[in-house]
Amino acid sequence: MRQRNKPWADDFLKENEHLIIPNPKSYQGNWKELFNNDNPIHIEIGTGKGQFIAGMAKQNPDINFIGIELAKSIIVSAAQKVMDSEQQNILLINENAENILEIFEKDEVSTIYLNFSDPWPKNRHEKRRLTYHKFLNNYREILKQDGELIFKTDNRGLFEYSLVSFSTFGMLLNEVNVDLHAIEDPTNVMTEYEEKFSAKGQPIYRCKASFNERT
Amino acid sequence: MRQRNKPWADDFLKENEHLIIPNPKSYQGNWKELFNNDNPIHIEIGTGKGQFIAGMAKQNPDINFIGIELAKSIIVSAAQKVMDSEQQNILLINENAENILEIFEKDEVSTIYLNFSDPWPKNRHEKRRLTYHKFLNNYREILKQDGELIFKTDNRGLFEYSLVSFSTFGMLLNEVNVDLHAIEDPTNVMTEYEEKFSAKGQPIYRCKASFNERT
Ligand SMILES: C[S@@+](CC[C@H](N)C(=O)[O-])C[C@H]1O[C@@H](n2cnc3c(N)ncnc32)[C@H](O)[C@@H]1O
Ligand SMILES: C[S@@+](CC[C@H](N)C(=O)[O-])C[C@H]1O[C@@H](n2cnc3c(N)ncnc32)[C@H](O)[C@@H]1O
Repeated sequence: MRQRNKPWADDFLKENEHLIIPNPKSYQGNWKELFNNDNPIHIEIGTGKGQFIAGMAKQNPDINFIGIELAKSIIVSAAQKVMDSEQQNILLINENAENILEIFEKDEVSTIYLNFSDPWPKNRHEKRRLTYHKFLNNYREILKQDGELIFKTDNRGLFEYSLVSFSTFGMLLNEVNVDLHAIEDPTNVMTEYEEKFSAKGQPIYRCKASFNERT
Repeated sequence: MRQRNKPWADDFLKENEHLIIPNPKSYQGNWKELFNNDNPIHIEIGTGKGQFIAGMAKQNPDINFIGIELAKSIIVSAAQKVMDSEQQNILLINENAENILEIFEKDEVSTIYLNFSDPWPKNRHEKRRLTYHKFLNNYREILKQDGELIFKTDNRGLFEYSLVSFSTFGMLLNEVNVDLHAIEDPTNVMTEYEEKFSAKGQPIYRCKASFNERT
């Protein structure tokens, strides 16, 4: 998803601080105040161009969505899509997911979505995969006790790795789907990557997992 | 795998009691004596026509293999294949897998293979699936502490169900493979069903799982 640097992106971000929240760490524990309600908070890590989060927010008006996207040039597209959707229950954060422990408080989040995360197929890049145990540790911290991690991908290697990673970490698999589009599901909101890869006939994988209570 | 009843099957079984062991419950805890050595014991549940077990026994001469097959008319074909292979490290049992606790002693088995088990897709038949928690409980009992359950199937629904079932039971996923034939693996021994379904272009799924130590 490389794009040419967009010099106007900084200006765009500044003009849209109501949507792309600057200095998100200062809202740790207080995100509900920005939404002005007590609805559950779902976050998406690696939001890309925003089709998923915009669609989900429309389908679930009683849930607050926060999209986290590292690339400035890409979050601009997500912001545009969110504005077009006219949904009030979405905020965006231009941050690295490595910092989520500083952005959210313990138990502040109900669901975490990982959609078509970068696969980092080389063994030596394992630590960068968003399902590496170090990341799982952070997800557990910010997720409520009954919260869920929902992971979709077209990437076989990343999916296989992630199921083993979840299991090794002691997570519970609540659902595994090895061909999401085999059965039509009107509640499934497709991401940009999902549309692209499923159009090529590739199976889409999904897993829902949660953190067991630990003693 | 329905076949016409073979009236000569009883005669065949009687003539080949060195291979298809009658009254297997009387060998509980003593299988190694039948093999005349102390090699690890691997069992396959639902052996079918025996291609897998014959191939595995040839590839692994220092492992003893026991195939369990419920259908008399089918185990006859497996016996024929085993005899053709001239492998000495295979025995067969014409029994229902429901009885394995009476056939094997605690910790007597090192690996259990489930290959293309009947999917029983209807919810009300869940209890018949060989990865239902009642069966897992029995597998845990007869498997050594570091033993492994290795499960292959072409059936999406059964695979998805089984991963969740393993996880819910507290098992550890050591490997997940959602397209076994995508990468050539000369050590993979194909079953009859595996040949048939992969020839149709269907992905073959595999999972290796073990039982965590419990407190
Ligand atoms: C392969 S794209 C998928 C985009 C979108 N989720 C989809 O399914 O269409 C991965 C996205 O994750 C973003 N990303 C990668 N690592 C990240 C990180 N550590 N923190 C936040 N975003 C990240 C990338 O910038 C990219 O936009
Ligand atoms: C779908 S076939 C697969 C055969 C072979 N494993 C293969 O992959 O080609 C399933 C086999 O399991 C056997 N089977 C089903 N339930 C069983 C049980 N409870 N105990 C032993 N064998 C069983 C059936 O008789 C049948 O031969």
